[in-house]
Amino acid sequence: MRELSLETQRKTQLADITSLVGEAVSGQAGTAAVLYVPHTTAGIVIQANAGLAVARDVEAALERIVDESWSWQHTEEEGERNPWSHVRAALTATSVTIPLRGGELALGAFQAIFFCEFDGPRTRTVLVSIF
Amino acid sequence: MRELSLETQRKTQLADITSLVGEAVSGQAGTAAVLYVPHTTAGIVIQANAGLAVARDVEAALERIVDESWSWQHTEEEGERNPWSHVRAALTATSVTIPLRGGELALGAFQAIFFCEFDGPRTRTVLVSIF
Amino acid sequence: MRELSLETQRKTQLADITSLVGEAVSGQAGTAAVLYVPHTTAGIVIQANAGLAVARDVEAALERIVDESWSWQHTEEEGERNPWSHVRAALTATSVTIPLRGGELALGAFQAIFFCEFDGPRTRTVLVSIF
Repeated sequence: MRELSLETQRKTQLADITSLVGEAVSGQAGTAAVLYVPHTTAGIVIQANAGLAVARDVEAALERIVDESWSWQHTEEEGERNPWSHVRAALTATSVTIPLRGGELALGAFQAIFFCEFDGPRTRTVLVSIF
Repeated sequence: MRELSLETQRKTQLADITSLVGEAVSGQAGTAAVLYVPHTTAGIVIQANAGLAVARDVEAALERIVDESWSWQHTEEEGERNPWSHVRAALTATSVTIPLRGGELALGAFQAIFFCEFDGPRTRTVLVSIF
Repeated sequence: MRELSLETQRKTQLADITSLVGEAVSGQAGTAAVLYVPHTTAGIVIQANAGLAVARDVEAALERIVDESWSWQHTEEEGERNPWSHVRAALTATSVTIPLRGGELALGAFQAIFFCEFDGPRTRTVLVSIF
């Protein structure tokens, strides 16, 4: 298992980690790579690598779908500072399994791997295991 | 493959199954554990283990994001009793793959595994396979 | 790794691929099958096989949760034609891992595997790997 480290810059941010994961996986023998996010206010999605357009639209949509102005019943009681961050993370994936082909990630032609930060900026970790 | 059984108590409920899964996995040799939910009105999420606060907020948010007052076109036609339960389940995961480290789940420090009930109370099953 | 091909018919469509995947997997020795969607405007969900009712309700709900009338900031700038398709895909799964039992998918009694098209009609691919 490899532990990849990254720094996020914004509160809500899809950070492209395709190269980071690709380097960790490259040349290793195996059938697939499992990516796992050990955080509760972050997730992972595979989305389009077309500049920043799609990533920014996904960020804005997730902020809109989970509205911070809702009444968050447990925020006061238990001091939960950022309940919306947890819900946004729950709507993305905690693990994703990507097949390997010839020792490389079998991503589609337009796919990139994005770490989804919902409570940044922070230092974050992604675990990568090969099967 | 192990089949874990649990009872849910409420219609919409994130039930912490971390100990249940941990015991099933503990000491087994392998690279990762795959959890699989064989139900269509339930799912699985990895979220914060900080008391009930986050779990209750995720429950409330999923009930809000998928509103039962929407017109559900097929409810009458085909007698579908709980279409919203299926949609809420579709927004969570059916499978999650968690790396193992020294024979234990490599969960993050604040992570718990939650079974997501969207049509309880019921008796439910989670499948656990080790790779 | 097998590459399954399918044709979708509608813009937003849950297409039942249970038989297609079942045939690709049938009789193979292994612990689980990983399904992977190499597209950025499509995903995969496991949902109810009860006629078309549930699938149509999931389609309608995802179109409702991600509203095309929102202001999509990057649509004009970078010519992104279908930002909502990407967001809908991000809310579903890119990969799902299904345990095998006696060489067959260990799906629950009411489960079917659906390819989720969010920008159809198109010719699409699903990758299937056995562990």
